[in-house]
Amino acid sequence: MPVKPDILKVTATAKSRLFQVEEIELRFSNGVERTYERLATRGRGAVMIVAIDADQNVLLIKEYAVGLEDYLLTLPKGLIDPGEDALQAANRELKEEAGFGAEALSLIKQMTSAPNYMGHKITAVLAEGLFPCRLPGDEPEEMEVIRWPLARLDELVSRDDFSEGRAIAALYMVRQRLAD
Amino acid sequence: MPVKPDILKVTATAKSRLFQVEEIELRFSNGVERTYERLATRGRGAVMIVAIDADQNVLLIKEYAVGLEDYLLTLPKGLIDPGEDALQAANRELKEEAGFGAEALSLIKQMTSAPNYMGHKITAVLAEGLFPCRLPGDEPEEMEVIRWPLARLDELVSRDDFSEGRAIAALYMVRQRLAD
Repeated sequence: MPVKPDILKVTATAKSRLFQVEEIELRFSNGVERTYERLATRGRGAVMIVAIDADQNVLLIKEYAVGLEDYLLTLPKGLIDPGEDALQAANRELKEEAGFGAEALSLIKQMTSAPNYMGHKITAVLAEGLFPCRLPGDEPEEMEVIRWPLARLDELVSRDDFSEGRAIAALYMVRQRLAD
Repeated sequence: MPVKPDILKVTATAKSRLFQVEEIELRFSNGVERTYERLATRGRGAVMIVAIDADQNVLLIKEYAVGLEDYLLTLPKGLIDPGEDALQAANRELKEEAGFGAEALSLIKQMTSAPNYMGHKITAVLAEGLFPCRLPGDEPEEMEVIRWPLARLDELVSRDDFSEGRAIAALYMVRQRLAD
């Protein structure tokens, strides 16, 4: 691997309730210096759940995404709470958002979102052996749950209301895992 | 589709050179009110390029990602400049970052990154008919370019240094497109 740049200085430059921006001064191994901005990473990361039922359907949720000001189809997801590992967080979020628990949970891949601008990580988790179980969550409205056949993944990916890159990646990885 | 929430108020709450944070007050159709934060979206979006050579290799770059403070394997990508469409931006970024132009460019999918927190969009573009052509870019150091066989995509996805969800999604979508 190349020699990493030296980090000369990290300065907090802006802060809101959720976000904190850092300015980071670097010197690359060739001597070039650059100043970048990134979002500071807090917390324990997040999980995204690919829940597959006995008929090989994936559970999708329809959720309002304030970044887009529209409803989207996506996978259940959420932050890992203190004291939880990724699998425990996945099972809790699945119960809160989709109303199902899972007998079998397995790690698929830890993904990054926009690594040039933030260190946030989200772990894709495969959930199988589903059973009805609802935990109260913090959602402002009940989410519609849609069962989509994994065999029709390409059709799902072609929809404008299914756009989240990490969810597309998670579904293709799970399809590959289940085919192996 | 569900009835969208009413947007009651949008307030700028923090600002840095690159980032601007907004607080947004919503009333959902069931009457529940919530206040969220999101990153404001500026600019014309971004492109991510899946460049495939005559031997069915994809061109990867090794780039320092300041959000992770490490080098990563990823796809060439960058912002769409004023006056460019996505295909023009893709060809320029491919020349700047990988040293190749493309005779044939096609849109694969416009993806979102973290739509609950930001409206940023990135369009995956398939580039074929590659020819050597380098444009000077704004990179602090020359990027290493790696040719990776598309047939070994699953092995790439299993690597810890290939983690960007949007890049994983783009590669699976292109593999599907080329197989159709």
